[in-house]
Amino acid sequence: MNKTIEELHKRKSVRAFEEKEISKDIKELILQSAFQAPTAGNQMLYSIIDVTDQKLKDRLSITCDNQPFIAKAPMVLIFIADCRKWFDAYTFAGLQPRNPGAGDILLAMQDAVIAAQNTVVAAQSLGIGSCYIGDILENAEEHISLLELDDYVIPISMVVYGYPTKQQIDREKPKRFEKEYMVHENSYRRLTEEETRKMFEKQSTKEDFNYDDFMEKFCNRKYMSEFSKEMTRSAEIYLKKFML
Amino acid sequence: MNKTIEELHKRKSVRAFEEKEISKDIKELILQSAFQAPTAGNQMLYSIIDVTDQKLKDRLSITCDNQPFIAKAPMVLIFIADCRKWFDAYTFAGLQPRNPGAGDILLAMQDAVIAAQNTVVAAQSLGIGSCYIGDILENAEEHISLLELDDYVIPISMVVYGYPTKQQIDREKPKRFEKEYMVHENSYRRLTEEETRKMFEKQSTKEDFNYDDFMEKFCNRKYMSEFSKEMTRSAEIYLKKFML
Repeated sequence: MNKTIEELHKRKSVRAFEEKEISKDIKELILQSAFQAPTAGNQMLYSIIDVTDQKLKDRLSITCDNQPFIAKAPMVLIFIADCRKWFDAYTFAGLQPRNPGAGDILLAMQDAVIAAQNTVVAAQSLGIGSCYIGDILENAEEHISLLELDDYVIPISMVVYGYPTKQQIDREKPKRFEKEYMVHENSYRRLTEEETRKMFEKQSTKEDFNYDDFMEKFCNRKYMSEFSKEMTRSAEIYLKKFML
Repeated sequence: MNKTIEELHKRKSVRAFEEKEISKDIKELILQSAFQAPTAGNQMLYSIIDVTDQKLKDRLSITCDNQPFIAKAPMVLIFIADCRKWFDAYTFAGLQPRNPGAGDILLAMQDAVIAAQNTVVAAQSLGIGSCYIGDILENAEEHISLLELDDYVIPISMVVYGYPTKQQIDREKPKRFEKEYMVHENSYRRLTEEETRKMFEKQSTKEDFNYDDFMEKFCNRKYMSEFSKEMTRSAEIYLKKFML
C-alpha cells in the first residue's frame, strides 16, 4: 500500500474544525486538483461556487438540515453540474443546440462529483478534513434563489473543509460493508435476506447487534425522515427540467 | 505539491493498454479504495459489477458507442447507483419503506461516482491508467437486460483500467479551462459571450484557434451526435423510475 492509497483508506468525514484558516495557496492547490480531474470530453461540465460570505454559510447551515458546523468551516465549495456553460458557448457561435436532457445532466453530475472527490483527496493529503453535505439537494426553491442558480444546473455536492480537531482525528472511521456484498461478477444481483442480515452483522462493531432494531431506528432517522423526503421532493424539481 | 496531488494532476485518460493483467492483489487494493471512499451516512449506496466475461466486454465495447479499447481492458468496473439494497434491507426487517425517489438516486449516484474516482486515483498511484466510459448511460434497454439491472438502480459510471502503452504515457494531457471561468464567489453566474470566447481561446493550444469553427465541429461531433441524443433518451428511462 503506497502513500496515496493509505490516504484514501484513512480519510473519514470531519465535522469539527480547528479555528484555523486555509491559506490562499493551499486553497489554490485544492481547486487545481478539481480542475485536473477526469472530465467527459475535456468539457468540465461543472462550476464551483466558493462560499466565502459568512451570512451565506450561516444560511446554508440551516437550509442543509440544520448542521451548525457548516457555518464554522473555513472553506465551503458547492459543485454545480452545469449544462448551461456549453449550451451558451454553442449559442454564442450562432448554433442552435438542443435543450440539455437527462443524459447531459447525468454526465455533468459525474464531472462535478469526480472533481469534488479530487478536492477531498487533495485536502486529505494536506492534513485538511472534509465532509460532503448531501443536504444541498434539499430546499431547491430557496437554494435556487440564494445561489442564483440557472435552470440548466444542479447543485449536486457541497463539501466543507477545515483542519480537524484532535477529537476528530482520534474518532474511529466507521466500518464498511465487506466486498462480497458490494461486488458482483458480470451482472447485478439482489442480495438475499440472509446475505443482507450477514452484511450488517459483519459491519457492526456491537456484539449484541440486533438487525431488526437497528433497521427500524435507522429507517426512521434517515430514510423516512423529513430531510430525506424533502431531498427527494427537491431533487425532483431540479431533475424535471431535464426531462424532455 | 505532495506526491498525491502530483498524481491527481498528472492523471489523464488512458485508452490503449499493454497486454498485461492486473494482478488479484492490485485489483483488491483498488476495490478496497472504492469501499473506503466517503459515502452518505456510511450507507454505500452503490454496487460494483466486475466485468470479467470477455463476451460481455466485447458487447459493451459495441453498446458503449463502439469503442474497441473497452474489450481490450484487463479490468472493467461498472459503478451502479443502488437504491435497491437498502430498500430490501428495510423490508427484510418488516418495515414499509417509501419507494426511492429523485433525492435517493442522486445521493446514490454521488456515492457511486465518489467510489469510482477513488479507484481511478488508487490505480494511478499504482501506475495503472483508466478511462471513464460515460456511454454506459446509453442503450438502457439492452444494458438492463445484459447486466440484469433492477428497477431501483442506475449504471452511472463505467471505468476501464490497464497499464498504459508508451504512446499513452507520452500523450500530452489536454489543457483545462482557467479558474476564473470555473469558480464563482457566493453565487452562480452565467459567463458572458466575451468571457466564453476568452475561456476557449486560453484553453486552446492552437495559435490560429477559431472559436466559431471549433464550436461548430465540436457541437456536431459531441452534443448533437447520435450517441449524445441516445444518452439523453436512455438516461431518461432510468431517471423516470425515480420520479414520484
